[in-house]
Amino acid sequence: MDPDRRAADAARERQHSLLKPRGSLGRLEDLAVWMAAVTGEPIPELRPLVVIAAADHGVAAEGVSAYPQEVTGQMLAAFLGGGSAISVLARAAGADVLVVDAGVAVRAGDPAGALGDDGSVIATGLRPSRNLATEPALTEDEVHLAVATGRRLASEAKARGANVLVGGDMGIANTTPSACLAAWLTGRPAAEVCGRGTGVDDAGLERKRAVIERAVALHGPHIDGPLAALRRMGGGELAVLTGLALGAGEQGLGYLCDGVVATAAAAIAAACDPALRPWLLAGHRSPEPAHRLLLEHLGLDPILDLGMRLGEASGAAAALAILRLACALHAGMATFDEANVSGPAQ
Amino acid sequence: MDPDRRAADAARERQHSLLKPRGSLGRLEDLAVWMAAVTGEPIPELRPLVVIAAADHGVAAEGVSAYPQEVTGQMLAAFLGGGSAISVLARAAGADVLVVDAGVAVRAGDPAGALGDDGSVIATGLRPSRNLATEPALTEDEVHLAVATGRRLASEAKARGANVLVGGDMGIANTTPSACLAAWLTGRPAAEVCGRGTGVDDAGLERKRAVIERAVALHGPHIDGPLAALRRMGGGELAVLTGLALGAGEQGLGYLCDGVVATAAAAIAAACDPALRPWLLAGHRSPEPAHRLLLEHLGLDPILDLGMRLGEASGAAAALAILRLACALHAGMATFDEANVSGPAQ
Repeated sequence: MDPDRRAADAARERQHSLLKPRGSLGRLEDLAVWMAAVTGEPIPELRPLVVIAAADHGVAAEGVSAYPQEVTGQMLAAFLGGGSAISVLARAAGADVLVVDAGVAVRAGDPAGALGDDGSVIATGLRPSRNLATEPALTEDEVHLAVATGRRLASEAKARGANVLVGGDMGIANTTPSACLAAWLTGRPAAEVCGRGTGVDDAGLERKRAVIERAVALHGPHIDGPLAALRRMGGGELAVLTGLALGAGEQGLGYLCDGVVATAAAAIAAACDPALRPWLLAGHRSPEPAHRLLLEHLGLDPILDLGMRLGEASGAAAALAILRLACALHAGMATFDEANVSGPAQ
Repeated sequence: MDPDRRAADAARERQHSLLKPRGSLGRLEDLAVWMAAVTGEPIPELRPLVVIAAADHGVAAEGVSAYPQEVTGQMLAAFLGGGSAISVLARAAGADVLVVDAGVAVRAGDPAGALGDDGSVIATGLRPSRNLATEPALTEDEVHLAVATGRRLASEAKARGANVLVGGDMGIANTTPSACLAAWLTGRPAAEVCGRGTGVDDAGLERKRAVIERAVALHGPHIDGPLAALRRMGGGELAVLTGLALGAGEQGLGYLCDGVVATAAAAIAAACDPALRPWLLAGHRSPEPAHRLLLEHLGLDPILDLGMRLGEASGAAAALAILRLACALHAGMATFDEANVSGPAQ
């Protein structure tokens, strides 16, 4: 599906009539035009939905994260309890948050019963990934199931009236598979794609780099396409987010990329379907070196660059505030004619 | 007056207890701590006020702007009418807008009578500046009156409960005096401080550069301090904004710098009173070369970099959205303990 060029042209024309020198709102003008293109509305309204996919990773056993694995499951409860960063940011953005269990090891830390039978966490039946340092992370069936789940969520989001999706991740150790995917997508060596994630120390960083190197050497020769890379070096949340991004493009929804994990998934999705590219927007740039490389690979210019490196869709959700301002200016400003103000001197 | 270090320390400690890896919210953490420092509240609430100072400039006669001078006065009505960019952005930020006539040539374009006797525009009695290419732009009395007006507005803002001020400008041709002030403050030549402003063509850019060069050569030898620079090469809105920034520091209010004009005024203010510096924050970076130089000169790292170059406090007002998110996260996130989530592995 292609974005709506007529709506984009109409939006650009409106921008040129608004009470300001042409181009003087910079990126805010481009964002309004992008919103028009993806929504088909010349004066678009932002209706965002946040999807957080959470999963655990066999590679955590290699000591590549500063946090214990139980945190992944504990954070599911925090997402629903309202005290996580994305909870606060989504409230500010007027966005609902869907939480997907894409293979969480331990569903603990649920004192309020928020993870009960009420469907507040979307189940997939996926289990944690295998250790990608020694074997493929996922099976083919798991990849298909996870990608299909992401696609289904995009379709349901469309049905409930959302027009921009924000995919986010939670998963202890998941910057390691993301860096592996970045290495495969960009051809860069482990040393260039490896960062500190949530904050490993120097020894942890060294272990992580060695694991990425080992994984790329082990799996590289067997990878014949983006879904094979996702299967061998990805993880449950990465595969769900790949499906979510693919679904956004297929359903005609804007897709706002978050940090290194969500962007790695979006890049795998764009490698599967190049028609996805115009539906993508980069919310922010994190300090993870692989994130910068992935954004360059996708040709995406991030809206924010605030040193955020939390995941959970937090960077993209912060960028929703700017996207909302772009829409408010586009809809709410007067034209030169309406305001009786003179244009540029001839 | 110094910012409140105890409140800042308490805010930093709270940030370290919140449900995220330390530092993972990047700049948003620093912004919350800055807000605590300037408000004295460990969990600060943002209460912004926007002040737009508008003035005309004798140097417009040199053909340094793409727009006719009558636009300055016409825009006063648009600020009050609600159709200007800053009107929309201030509404989104929950901020009132005060508009100051700091020497507008023609108060036209006022079909709705918004500029009548109801005090909706703050009068100063200032007239447009003289042509700085050939003579001093302002008299000493005018500088004192304008700076005192800005200081008074800061004091009144404090009295009405604002805790962050955003100064903005409107004035056809006013990037020329701003570039002159930047040249004086940073010691850079005209070619490095001169930009296209609202969009002059190549010939206009050449004229502008020559005017800046001429002005710096004419006035430089007579300038013995920042207020003398402001008098000889500034303008009414620049002088009011200088006073507003000085008043912010004196009253203990945060001051969010907008683009090249507001930042030039803030830099003059900081040159008058170095104690102002910790009260300043940079909202954004515009493509005007002098703006980048002034931010570096002040040691300020802009929150946004979106290619905005409109003035009217628009870039800083957009940044209020990010400052508000920083406060919302600081106040609204749970701690690790509250959420029953494990900290980093030992």
